[in-house]
Amino acid sequence: MPEAPAPHVFDTAIALAHQGGDDFAGHTSPAYWNMIGPFGGITAAIALNAVLQHPQLLGEPVSLTVNFAGPVTQGPFTARARPARTNRSTQHWWVELVQTGADGEESVSTTATVVTAARRATWGASDAPMPAVPAPADVARSVRPGNVAAWLARYEVRTIEGDIPQVWEGQHAESSLSRWWLRDDPPRPLDFASLTAMADVFFPRVWLKRATRVPVGTVSMTVYFHADGAQLAANGEQYLLAEARAQAFRDGFFDQTGLLWGADGRLLCSTHQVVYYKE
Amino acid sequence: MPEAPAPHVFDTAIALAHQGGDDFAGHTSPAYWNMIGPFGGITAAIALNAVLQHPQLLGEPVSLTVNFAGPVTQGPFTARARPARTNRSTQHWWVELVQTGADGEESVSTTATVVTAARRATWGASDAPMPAVPAPADVARSVRPGNVAAWLARYEVRTIEGDIPQVWEGQHAESSLSRWWLRDDPPRPLDFASLTAMADVFFPRVWLKRATRVPVGTVSMTVYFHADGAQLAANGEQYLLAEARAQAFRDGFFDQTGLLWGADGRLLCSTHQVVYYKE
Repeated sequence: MPEAPAPHVFDTAIALAHQGGDDFAGHTSPAYWNMIGPFGGITAAIALNAVLQHPQLLGEPVSLTVNFAGPVTQGPFTARARPARTNRSTQHWWVELVQTGADGEESVSTTATVVTAARRATWGASDAPMPAVPAPADVARSVRPGNVAAWLARYEVRTIEGDIPQVWEGQHAESSLSRWWLRDDPPRPLDFASLTAMADVFFPRVWLKRATRVPVGTVSMTVYFHADGAQLAANGEQYLLAEARAQAFRDGFFDQTGLLWGADGRLLCSTHQVVYYKE
Repeated sequence: MPEAPAPHVFDTAIALAHQGGDDFAGHTSPAYWNMIGPFGGITAAIALNAVLQHPQLLGEPVSLTVNFAGPVTQGPFTARARPARTNRSTQHWWVELVQTGADGEESVSTTATVVTAARRATWGASDAPMPAVPAPADVARSVRPGNVAAWLARYEVRTIEGDIPQVWEGQHAESSLSRWWLRDDPPRPLDFASLTAMADVFFPRVWLKRATRVPVGTVSMTVYFHADGAQLAANGEQYLLAEARAQAFRDGFFDQTGLLWGADGRLLCSTHQVVYYKE
């Protein structure tokens, strides 16, 4: 009998064991570790996955907001997903990720809300067509220092414009726009969880803008899904085109807006976040 | 002794009476009624106001996400705001609006998360400068049929481009961009609650794009605040410049992104929403 293939490292990282009721047990993943906590995208994917695994789930994700409320320490956590309201074709979810401290007290590291819905075919249009860019094969792979943060090695990034500064000398960038081709490394068929994580792969716009590596942390992140599960599956392991730009930087917080298109040119999701920065 | 001036209709609409603990009592406002429920912006302002009135509040709003989970009926409601986590300089909130039905059962109409923070002066920049547009006095006031939906009469809108279609004949608009000057009617000094409501004043982009008045409803809305309370207060009763555009329309949902600038040209907030549409 052939052995089952080993699961992809992403699937291991977001794996949840249903504990009955609304609780799911998970464990942080060294493979997606950032500097002092998990990569925010993996945390967002876990929050979504708790809804996707919930026996009462209706429909597919339309909207996700994840708030990074406090530090996550290496080890086990509980993802708790609860339907706040179920309608005929939409469902609204509360999600929280909690960890139990040495004192036995639960603390909330992450809060989230998710909207799922049964989607139906309708009239459609796009006001955000995929920009004309060189093909992935014509763009060099960007160096992503996995020794600095493990999760960087989990993504293949081919930067078209707006690369992370190669020198950090405070030179001021006019634009905060980055564009790159992006996929999991090793490649993995696209789904809602992996798209959610990829919506957080953009390095902080404040680093691009200032070429100064100030401390940063995403505070809140939203993803609006424009594709259903079948459209995501059809993308398979092909590259996504991703872009992000900032709007305003002021008094310790900036926002950035991103778009991710599939290989067929369709917009798969838009994503927004507000990020803390120091100084 | 002079009489106290009557409160502004907006303040009456968002008024909450603290019931102790995390509960606040409010009442829907006929003045901000939409077709079959309250104007979404007033609901968002009420959700935020529950946090602003909470005795444990730390700092000022940075981020708000409101999910419109179910119908709101005319009458009393409870706004419940609970700190999920309080850090040294940021605080994460759960908010829900509930109504008690004739059967005595509570039902959740609205869920929300809010992040508040103590902001500190830092380096800043804007990548979304206010566009060059004619002054408010040089733009005609748009007709907003308050007899169709009461809340429309609560705002003075002076449309620069992307007006609501005057004929509904299914003509297709190339762009989903609208820009207008905007303020409360009667004028009211700007604050976090009124800015939140104004972030939802844009009519649905699908109407502009299709010139077909399909049924719509906002599913989830996010506001990122770039200004602190003092900057909002400095705007006073002056007009805001507001713009919104859509990204993608597909299978019953579209997203729109908006920006609101103060009279001094500074970006006050960015806002995003995903909207259900039929057909």
